[in-house]
Amino acid sequence: MSAYRALEARFKRCSDLYGALSILQWDHQVMMPPGGNAVRAEQMATLRQLAHELLTGPETAELLDRAEGERAGLGPWQAANLAEMRHRQRHATALPTDLIVALVRATTEAEMLWREARARADFARLRPALEEVLRLVREEAAAKAQALRLEPYDALLDGYEPGVTTVEIDAWFAPLQAFLPDFLEQVLRRQITPLPLQGSFPKDKQKALGERLMAALGFDFTHGRLDESLHPFCGGVPDDVRMTARYDESDVTSGLMAVLHETGHALYNAGLPKAWRHQPVGAPRSTAVHESQSLLLEMQICRSRAFLGYLAPLLAEAFGDQPAFSPDNLYRRAIRVERGLIRVDADEVTYPLHIILRYRLEQALLAGDLAVADLPGAWHEGMRELLGVTPQGDREGVLQDIHWPSGAFGYFPCYTLGALMAAQLFQALRAAEPDLEAGIGRGDFRPLLAWLRRNIHEQGSLLGTQTLLARATGRALTPRPFLEQLERRYLA
Amino acid sequence: MSAYRALEARFKRCSDLYGALSILQWDHQVMMPPGGNAVRAEQMATLRQLAHELLTGPETAELLDRAEGERAGLGPWQAANLAEMRHRQRHATALPTDLIVALVRATTEAEMLWREARARADFARLRPALEEVLRLVREEAAAKAQALRLEPYDALLDGYEPGVTTVEIDAWFAPLQAFLPDFLEQVLRRQITPLPLQGSFPKDKQKALGERLMAALGFDFTHGRLDESLHPFCGGVPDDVRMTARYDESDVTSGLMAVLHETGHALYNAGLPKAWRHQPVGAPRSTAVHESQSLLLEMQICRSRAFLGYLAPLLAEAFGDQPAFSPDNLYRRAIRVERGLIRVDADEVTYPLHIILRYRLEQALLAGDLAVADLPGAWHEGMRELLGVTPQGDREGVLQDIHWPSGAFGYFPCYTLGALMAAQLFQALRAAEPDLEAGIGRGDFRPLLAWLRRNIHEQGSLLGTQTLLARATGRALTPRPFLEQLERRYLA
Repeated sequence: MSAYRALEARFKRCSDLYGALSILQWDHQVMMPPGGNAVRAEQMATLRQLAHELLTGPETAELLDRAEGERAGLGPWQAANLAEMRHRQRHATALPTDLIVALVRATTEAEMLWREARARADFARLRPALEEVLRLVREEAAAKAQALRLEPYDALLDGYEPGVTTVEIDAWFAPLQAFLPDFLEQVLRRQITPLPLQGSFPKDKQKALGERLMAALGFDFTHGRLDESLHPFCGGVPDDVRMTARYDESDVTSGLMAVLHETGHALYNAGLPKAWRHQPVGAPRSTAVHESQSLLLEMQICRSRAFLGYLAPLLAEAFGDQPAFSPDNLYRRAIRVERGLIRVDADEVTYPLHIILRYRLEQALLAGDLAVADLPGAWHEGMRELLGVTPQGDREGVLQDIHWPSGAFGYFPCYTLGALMAAQLFQALRAAEPDLEAGIGRGDFRPLLAWLRRNIHEQGSLLGTQTLLARATGRALTPRPFLEQLERRYLA
Repeated sequence: MSAYRALEARFKRCSDLYGALSILQWDHQVMMPPGGNAVRAEQMATLRQLAHELLTGPETAELLDRAEGERAGLGPWQAANLAEMRHRQRHATALPTDLIVALVRATTEAEMLWREARARADFARLRPALEEVLRLVREEAAAKAQALRLEPYDALLDGYEPGVTTVEIDAWFAPLQAFLPDFLEQVLRRQITPLPLQGSFPKDKQKALGERLMAALGFDFTHGRLDESLHPFCGGVPDDVRMTARYDESDVTSGLMAVLHETGHALYNAGLPKAWRHQPVGAPRSTAVHESQSLLLEMQICRSRAFLGYLAPLLAEAFGDQPAFSPDNLYRRAIRVERGLIRVDADEVTYPLHIILRYRLEQALLAGDLAVADLPGAWHEGMRELLGVTPQGDREGVLQDIHWPSGAFGYFPCYTLGALMAAQLFQALRAAEPDLEAGIGRGDFRPLLAWLRRNIHEQGSLLGTQTLLARATGRALTPRPFLEQLERRYLA
C-alpha cells in the first residue's frame, strides 16, 4: 500500500472518531440528563485522545514524509488532501502533551467559573482562571508560532482560517472601522419604528414553520433533524446533520432567523463532497467560510424584501394574520439597527464593531500589552469609542462571550470575515442568476442552492479560502460588496 | 506503575469506547434519521475496532501476565477485576481478525435478509445467508473451544453466562420440560377470561404513567431518560441510562409491562458499584443475571396482586375508570396463559418451552446434526411436541427471532436462566422482608430496591453467578422456586 493510502486509512479513523464525538456532543446539549455529565466528559476525552494519538504518532509523521515523495502520482483532490493532512498534523504536533492537558483542565475550569461570574456579573470571580488560560494560550501561540513559522497571534488564527494573518485582517477591517461609525449615525436617523408583534407564538408552530422553511431551502430531513437547545448550533456529520434552535414565544422572527442562520451551516455540511466524506479535504474550508454560508442565508437572503414577501403569508397562515406581518413591516423589523451591548443580538451594521473590539483586545492580551485585570476597563473604553455606548457592568461587557474562557483566541475575526465573504458571494450570485430574487419571492431556492453547491459546498477543502473565493466571485476578498450592500439596504 | 494499574488505564479506555458506542447505538434506534445509517455503521465499527485492538494487543497480554505476579498485593475487587480482564481478553483474542471481519459482514447481510424474509414469510430468502453465518459461528465456536478448553457450544455460552455449561443447563431445564406440558393443560382448564379493555389509551398518557411508575420503583431521571423505539431496550451507561418503550394505544397493560421489564434492567445498570464504573468488575454479572432483574420486576413483582392493587387506581386516574381496571381483572389479565407461537408474546408458563426448543435446535445446528434447510421442519415438530401448536408458516416460526441471523448462538438459554433466578431471588427477598408485599400495595418499593442493590446490583462482577446467587439466596440455582411460584399463582 502506498504511504498516501495508508494515511487515508488513518484519517478515516480520525474522521469516525470526530463524527462520533459530534453526535455525542449533540446528545450532550440536546438529550443528556444532567447526571450524565461526568461520564460523558470521560468518553469524549478518550475519543479525542485516540484521535490525537493517531494524528501525532510517529507513524503518521513518517507516512506524511513518504507520501510527499509520491505526490507526482496524486490527483488534485489527493494532493489537496495530503496538504490538509499535513496542516492538521502540524497543528496537533506543535503542542507538547502536558500543555494540551493543562489547557483542557484550565479551560474547563474557566468555562465553569465564567458561567458563575456571568450569572453574578462578577468579573473578579473569573479573573484568576482567565489569567491562567491566557498564560497557557500564550504558550500555545508561541509553540505554534515556532512550528508553523508564523507570528504568535497568526499561528492561532491559522487554526480557524488557515493562511490568513493580521496583515490581511487589518487591511479588511480598516475600511469598516472608518466607515461604520458615521454610517451608523445616518442609519439611526433614518429608521422607521416597526409595528410590534401582537400575541404569542407557540413553540411547536414555530418549529413546524422552521422545518417548512428548511425543507424549502433544501435541507434533507432524511439526513438530519431539528431539535431544541439552549444555544442554537449545527452539529452532527454531513449525512446526519443535527441542527438546533431556541424559540421565544413572544417573538417569532428571532427564532426563525436563528433557524435560517443554522440552516446555512447545515446546507454547507450536507453539501460537502460525497466522494471525500471521511477525509480532511472533504471538510468545510474554514470557520470564516462556514460563517459566510450562515450569514449569506440569514443576512443576504432572508432579510431581503423578496424573502420577507414569501414569508409574510406563511406567518399569517401559521399564527393568524396581523398588521405586523405585512412584508413592509417585516422588512423594517429585519433591518432594525441599534447601538447594542451584546454581540449575539447585534445587527449587521454594528456587528463588525463588536468584532473589531474583541480583535484588538485579544491581540493586546496575547502580546502582553493588556493585563486581564485591565480588561473590563479596556472593554468599556472600546465600546464607547466604537459603538458609542457603555455597559453598566461586566455581564453585558466582557463576560458576555465564552470564547476567551474556552481558550479560543483568534476565532472572533472569522465572524466578520464570514460577513464580508457572504456579501461578496451574494453579489456574484446575483450577477450569475438574474432571476434569483424573483424565485426567492416564490419560495424557489433551487438556483441559490445549486450555485452554492457548485461554487462552495462541493469544493470542500480543495482550494485555499482566497482561491475558492476568487474562483466563485472573480476576485479576492474585499469589504466593498459588504459596504455597498449596507448602503443599498439602509440608505436607499 | 504496576502492571495492574496500567491494565486499569487500558480497560478504562475500552469502557469509554463501549460507553460511547452505547449512546451511539441508542441514538441509532431512537433519534437518527435513516440517511445516517451508513456513516453511523462506519463510526461504530471504528470504535469497536479500537476497543478490540486495545484488548488484543500484545501489551495487554504482557500486562496480564505481569499482573498475575502482583496478585498477592491486590484487594478482592482488584483480583476479581483482573480475572474479568483476563476473561474478556481470552474471548477477544480467541478469534483471528479475518474471522471477526467475516462474521460482521455475514451477520450484517443475514440481518438485512432476515427482515425481508420475515416480512414476506419466505425462509428460502434467508437460508443461504444463515448457512454462511452458521458456518462461521461453527468456526468461532471451535476457535473459542480451543482457547478456553471448553466444548464448542459451551464456549459460546461462556460469552453470555461465564462458567455455565450444557451439563448444568440440561439439569435445570429437564424438570421444566417434565413439568410444564401437563401443568399447562391444568392451567388452561382453570383460566377465567378477563374483561376486555375498553377505549383507547393515548401514548403520552401511557408514557407519563410509565415514568411515574419508574420513579416510584427508584429510577433516577437525573441519570436517565425514557424514549420510544420499535423494540423496547435498555441502553446507555450506568450514570446515563437510556430506556425505551413501545406503546399500543389499544392495550395499556402491554406497554406498561414492557416499561416495567426494562426498568428492571435499568435499575441494575444504575445500581452497579460506583467505585468501579469504568472497570470490568463494575459491569453487570451476566446476561442471565441481567434478565433476572427485569423478570423479577415484571413477572414476580408487577404481576402480583399487591402491585396490581396499587396500579388499579393509577390507571383509573390516568385514563378514567372502567370495569377492566379492577385489581381482580388486572390480575386475570396478568396471568393469562395460552399456547402461543411467538416467544416475545409468551407468558411465564409457556416461555421456557419456547426456549427449550431453541436451545435444542441451536445445539443441533452447531453440532452439524441439523441442516439449515431442515430447520423449519424441525421447528414445527418441536412446537407441536412442546407447546402443542403448529405455526402456519415460518414468519410465526423460525423467522420470528433475529438471534441466529445475528450470530447469537448460546444466548437463548439465558432468558430462562434469568426466569429461574428471578423466582429464587424473589423467594429469598420475601423471606428477608416480610412486609414487602404490603409495601408494594402502597407503592413503597424501597425495601425491594435496597435488597437488590445490596445483594445483586452493587456486587457488579465481583462474584461468579452461582456464588452471587448462593450468597443472596442461600443456595445454588434450582428450578424449584420457579415451579413452586407457578403452582401458587396458577393453581391456587
